[in-house]
Amino acid sequence: MSNVAIGVDVGGTKALALIVARDGRVLSEVKSATPHDLNESAGAATASVLTEQVRELCARHGLDPSAVPIGIGLPGLMRRDGRLAFAPNLQSVSGADVGALLSESLGSSLVHCENDANCAALAEHEWGAARGIDDFVMVTLGTGIGGGVFVDGRLVRGRSGFAGEIGHMVVQARGAACSCGGYGCWERYASGGGLGRLTREAAEAGRLPTLVERRGDVDAVRAEDVTTAAAEGLDEAVVLMKEMGWWLALGLANLAAILDAGHFVIGGGLSIASDLVLPSARGYLVDLVEGYDARPTITVTSSMFGPRSGAMGAALVAFERGP
Amino acid sequence: MSNVAIGVDVGGTKALALIVARDGRVLSEVKSATPHDLNESAGAATASVLTEQVRELCARHGLDPSAVPIGIGLPGLMRRDGRLAFAPNLQSVSGADVGALLSESLGSSLVHCENDANCAALAEHEWGAARGIDDFVMVTLGTGIGGGVFVDGRLVRGRSGFAGEIGHMVVQARGAACSCGGYGCWERYASGGGLGRLTREAAEAGRLPTLVERRGDVDAVRAEDVTTAAAEGLDEAVVLMKEMGWWLALGLANLAAILDAGHFVIGGGLSIASDLVLPSARGYLVDLVEGYDARPTITVTSSMFGPRSGAMGAALVAFERGP
Repeated sequence: MSNVAIGVDVGGTKALALIVARDGRVLSEVKSATPHDLNESAGAATASVLTEQVRELCARHGLDPSAVPIGIGLPGLMRRDGRLAFAPNLQSVSGADVGALLSESLGSSLVHCENDANCAALAEHEWGAARGIDDFVMVTLGTGIGGGVFVDGRLVRGRSGFAGEIGHMVVQARGAACSCGGYGCWERYASGGGLGRLTREAAEAGRLPTLVERRGDVDAVRAEDVTTAAAEGLDEAVVLMKEMGWWLALGLANLAAILDAGHFVIGGGLSIASDLVLPSARGYLVDLVEGYDARPTITVTSSMFGPRSGAMGAALVAFERGP
Repeated sequence: MSNVAIGVDVGGTKALALIVARDGRVLSEVKSATPHDLNESAGAATASVLTEQVRELCARHGLDPSAVPIGIGLPGLMRRDGRLAFAPNLQSVSGADVGALLSESLGSSLVHCENDANCAALAEHEWGAARGIDDFVMVTLGTGIGGGVFVDGRLVRGRSGFAGEIGHMVVQARGAACSCGGYGCWERYASGGGLGRLTREAAEAGRLPTLVERRGDVDAVRAEDVTTAAAEGLDEAVVLMKEMGWWLALGLANLAAILDAGHFVIGGGLSIASDLVLPSARGYLVDLVEGYDARPTITVTSSMFGPRSGAMGAALVAFERGP
């Protein structure tokens, strides 16, 4: 078995590649923008970027790119055969077999693909915030919301390997339009993209006067302005982060009802905003979970590895699948 | 092992008790109204009714009530120790240990309790519409909506045994008030109680003119009037049943996204209305499931045992737990 593996997490905005040791230590990292070229054949531009990342990491550590196990985490419906069947937040890769493209460019037979949030769940279960916990849900907040569901100590994959698409659980029937083609999906309210939407609506409704004044224009206020201002304690921004916390709690309450999960791990690219959102989400859970008082305490914690969980879990998948 | 077991399904309106053979044949049945006496100590009135039912069935078949394994299915949060922690649709039993009460009155040590929808799922998996299917969700439509979730051939119980409370998944944030204390729960839209609510709203909004004329009063139109008239083909009633089908499909789509379940079995007391609801629900699923075209066909079937699944599954639990 290899002593190290490469894990790559391909998100809606950036791709993070890591060299990871068997005990979970991260030895090296490289970050690139995710290409969104819809003119090239599906996944080709992304596969080029990943190939460069792998070569760069291998060069640094004197490794042979064809001999290192490589795991790739991708958002969306990842089939068991490695093809990305549907990816609303990464449409340039939808339908592609990124693993095969990368295998070809690297001359490697050691490339394995998995859903990105499943990767994050595996990493947090093996090394992080869910170590020793058999029933939990990993929730990754990024452009959208990804999920990895553990039941009885095992990742739930479902019939085709598509389980965990928790971001597309509808929480507001006929609500905000989603990139998946549906309406009212959870990720339109509680992800990075959801915060962007809440921000636009709040700015237009006159609920963010200070931020609009700072930016000089209603349309110029961004989600990042809200998280920054909320961290500084600006009331109007704090209120909006609480609103996002309520929506986060609503989805967690649904998952608690369906799965009786006692533990949630919140990660993903937006997890740096956790300190602002999680305390209010925990508070709202009390009212939102059916029979809250009849249940043992439900814990909601930040992921241990933040935006790195996905890539670390991809490396774990590579370790587990070989050689 | 006993050749027969008694299974009792305690619903919001009636309690159904069956004698069941090991191969699933139902040998005898008795039905009673569920008492809703909130003045007696929790569960006492219900335990009396169940005791009578068991004695009646045993008398018919010359069995000793203390020697027959007995399973009881109850709605709500059923703890692993058999106590009903929270039961929004059966509040007179909430907090009670019905199994212990029945054990005492019958002098039996063979009484076992389980969530009613979990019982239905077990029965359909063992003998019915989910035989040989490892990933499916049982959905029971009655006063509320119950659920039993199978993953990899096993019933998901969750941390405290509370998994499968799918009726309290919120599908309409800040929506209709639910008996659980929450708002917008799925069962307020797609259960028997939900149909009642949709019926009242439609009658008040002037959308059920024929039924209001037949009953002579807006307030007199009931859900049963709608199902009967829809079966006869009355347009205004058919439209309302389709609306319920849409809400049913919305919740199924959420479960498909979260669990990648490829199969749903619809049962419960309202399942006689299945012919009116399931075809439209199947049609709406196509638009409501994330990435529907990328998935293998999702099947939605009626339960094989209809309103009997729960009691049959309770008997199965009794067989499995002993003696």
